[in-house]
Amino acid sequence: MYVLQSPPDAVVTIDRREYLYFVGTGYLGLQNHPEVIGAACLATERYGIHSATTRAGFGNSPPVLEAERRTAELYAAEAAFYFAAGYAGNAVLMNVLQERFDLLLIDELSHFSVVDASRQSRLPARTFRHRDADDLAATIERHIRPGMKPLLLTDGVFSVRGTIAPLPDYRQVLSRYAGAGMMIDDAHAVGVLGRNGRGTPEHFGLPNDVNSNGGPLPAVCNQADSVPRLTPSNPADVSTFLTATASKALGGFGGIIPGSREFIELVRRSSHWFDGASAPPAAAAAATAKAVEIVMADADRRARLHANVHKMKHGLRGLGFDADDSPVPIVMLRLGDAENMRRIQCELMRRGIAVAYLSAYSGLDAEGGLRIAVFTTHTDAMIERLIDELRRIV
Amino acid sequence: MYVLQSPPDAVVTIDRREYLYFVGTGYLGLQNHPEVIGAACLATERYGIHSATTRAGFGNSPPVLEAERRTAELYAAEAAFYFAAGYAGNAVLMNVLQERFDLLLIDELSHFSVVDASRQSRLPARTFRHRDADDLAATIERHIRPGMKPLLLTDGVFSVRGTIAPLPDYRQVLSRYAGAGMMIDDAHAVGVLGRNGRGTPEHFGLPNDVNSNGGPLPAVCNQADSVPRLTPSNPADVSTFLTATASKALGGFGGIIPGSREFIELVRRSSHWFDGASAPPAAAAAATAKAVEIVMADADRRARLHANVHKMKHGLRGLGFDADDSPVPIVMLRLGDAENMRRIQCELMRRGIAVAYLSAYSGLDAEGGLRIAVFTTHTDAMIERLIDELRRIV
Repeated sequence: MYVLQSPPDAVVTIDRREYLYFVGTGYLGLQNHPEVIGAACLATERYGIHSATTRAGFGNSPPVLEAERRTAELYAAEAAFYFAAGYAGNAVLMNVLQERFDLLLIDELSHFSVVDASRQSRLPARTFRHRDADDLAATIERHIRPGMKPLLLTDGVFSVRGTIAPLPDYRQVLSRYAGAGMMIDDAHAVGVLGRNGRGTPEHFGLPNDVNSNGGPLPAVCNQADSVPRLTPSNPADVSTFLTATASKALGGFGGIIPGSREFIELVRRSSHWFDGASAPPAAAAAATAKAVEIVMADADRRARLHANVHKMKHGLRGLGFDADDSPVPIVMLRLGDAENMRRIQCELMRRGIAVAYLSAYSGLDAEGGLRIAVFTTHTDAMIERLIDELRRIV
Repeated sequence: MYVLQSPPDAVVTIDRREYLYFVGTGYLGLQNHPEVIGAACLATERYGIHSATTRAGFGNSPPVLEAERRTAELYAAEAAFYFAAGYAGNAVLMNVLQERFDLLLIDELSHFSVVDASRQSRLPARTFRHRDADDLAATIERHIRPGMKPLLLTDGVFSVRGTIAPLPDYRQVLSRYAGAGMMIDDAHAVGVLGRNGRGTPEHFGLPNDVNSNGGPLPAVCNQADSVPRLTPSNPADVSTFLTATASKALGGFGGIIPGSREFIELVRRSSHWFDGASAPPAAAAAATAKAVEIVMADADRRARLHANVHKMKHGLRGLGFDADDSPVPIVMLRLGDAENMRRIQCELMRRGIAVAYLSAYSGLDAEGGLRIAVFTTHTDAMIERLIDELRRIV
């Protein structure tokens, strides 16, 4: 077991040795940003570790409200729900969506948290082939019955393979079914994709109306037994729903669901992460708010990341690897069998470079693969060094 | 909506005004302890906001490992799993237990997170009357079929009513069924009940073998497709399983599952909070480790809490309220209808005292109730002040 004895960054300390680090999800280098750390510490000193109660009563603190204001701003949304753990985001959202849809269609390589959420719903669920809109269409046709509303579940960016879900193709398929929707786990896209960092839908130029199809709410509040229902949408529309996280590119911590005021109120009332769980730690909330502020003020940080991604993928293609040219800062290399890839990973570590070897993870078979992550904070020289060492080892 | 503009403590700032505070879960006054806050900030400066990757690879940081060491120590257990959100604890544990049991019996007033976990399991589930071992027995008899292994689900301490689950009575009922178990959400008992603060099982003098009935593990690791199964237990035993949280009495943040080395390995492998979720924030982990250290070194902190609880309940009984004499730092007052209780809550707020009015929550009907929380940090004078004001208002 490796122990990371420094913040995640381009250079880290693992087990008391320094490494160039191409692992994980700190794409914009914000987990170690002095202003983010400063905000986290200041908030902890001012507000304690956290409010020690739920948001439904006295659990609203300035850092948590600020995290919600900032994340709503990032998405140009009216509101946002911010909660302690991004992993739970799909389950939180599913509490609302299960009332409205009848059949789930799941990309076979979706993240564990998507699968967990689909199981929790108890709706009938079918998987379709990874990023395959034709198989999506065929799968719906095989399983849909009259009046059923289908909901597609997918990662926006697949965290291991670095692929992007073909949302426009999916929309075309789904538009044939009245009341269809798609739900995107955009954890690895927020802050990274799209002109404003709003993720996969913005990357594809889809309308910015995610999580907005909630309809008006009754005037009651905090009544567990009177959770409002979603109003039916226009049959021609394909509604888009999305969850994100503060813990990856954004450099904070916790789950984020942005959306219309009505929809967010619905999400808060139908999940017990608002009225039955402790509000997020002050440090996580303040870090999230500050990191989002930085991301919004400094678009250049994302541009530098994209330049690094381009450089890395260009270099890998030069070695004969199959790397697409998307701005996703993840590359998956599959080189022979598990033994060979473990050897390469160990050899890179020996030479002071950390990449991840993942096995039987999120759709990778037991042979596994080498996952390379690109950060804003990597220099040209660091990227060239990785390419050079790979050239020597492989 | 109230905004808490200070740390939770005996005296707080709400919406720019000072209040005596009898709300929430900061029973031992640790969310605002200088050493806990200091540890959180130091860890954030040293390790960044968090490791930005999962525990399965490079996500093990010194604060997270320290939180696991300390919480295992608190329970005198071999190991512990520490993850980002206590709310998810029951679902995390259920991933393991669903392989072993066939029928769930749920106290009707169990916390939302217990109900969520039971739903996720897809096992048949029945509720029994709150704290009623006879109804538990009758419910099992009605629904069990030959060979079925029943699992009881309950809060150890019920967070709203402040009642304690009668674990010895449950054990007696369950011991009639081969392979029976009970799973306790001990979120509001850890640090508070039992000689060493190990919660409800220790309060009742049950054997300290929670989460230990896992059996040996195969040698594979990090293989999602080869999650080991629990070995069958001795038919005469009633296995006890438990989840806890760092966010209430302990003053940290995050979920805790202590147990035997084998069992914890099983929990880590069968849930994706280990290999599919970001490791907890450094601030939360370091706060948790430090707070547990304080709780273990200063048993007097718990003794003072118990003395305060006794004083509060004695005083309330003097006003004619029905308050038991358990060491649980929660009292639920139900005084006439919702309107009357809202009036009392507002009147107390007007006089500078905050208590919570809860409605339709965790088994409370729409009339709701007033929840009073007792902290170590309340002085005699503060408790007397609340009693006096209640005498005048009610």
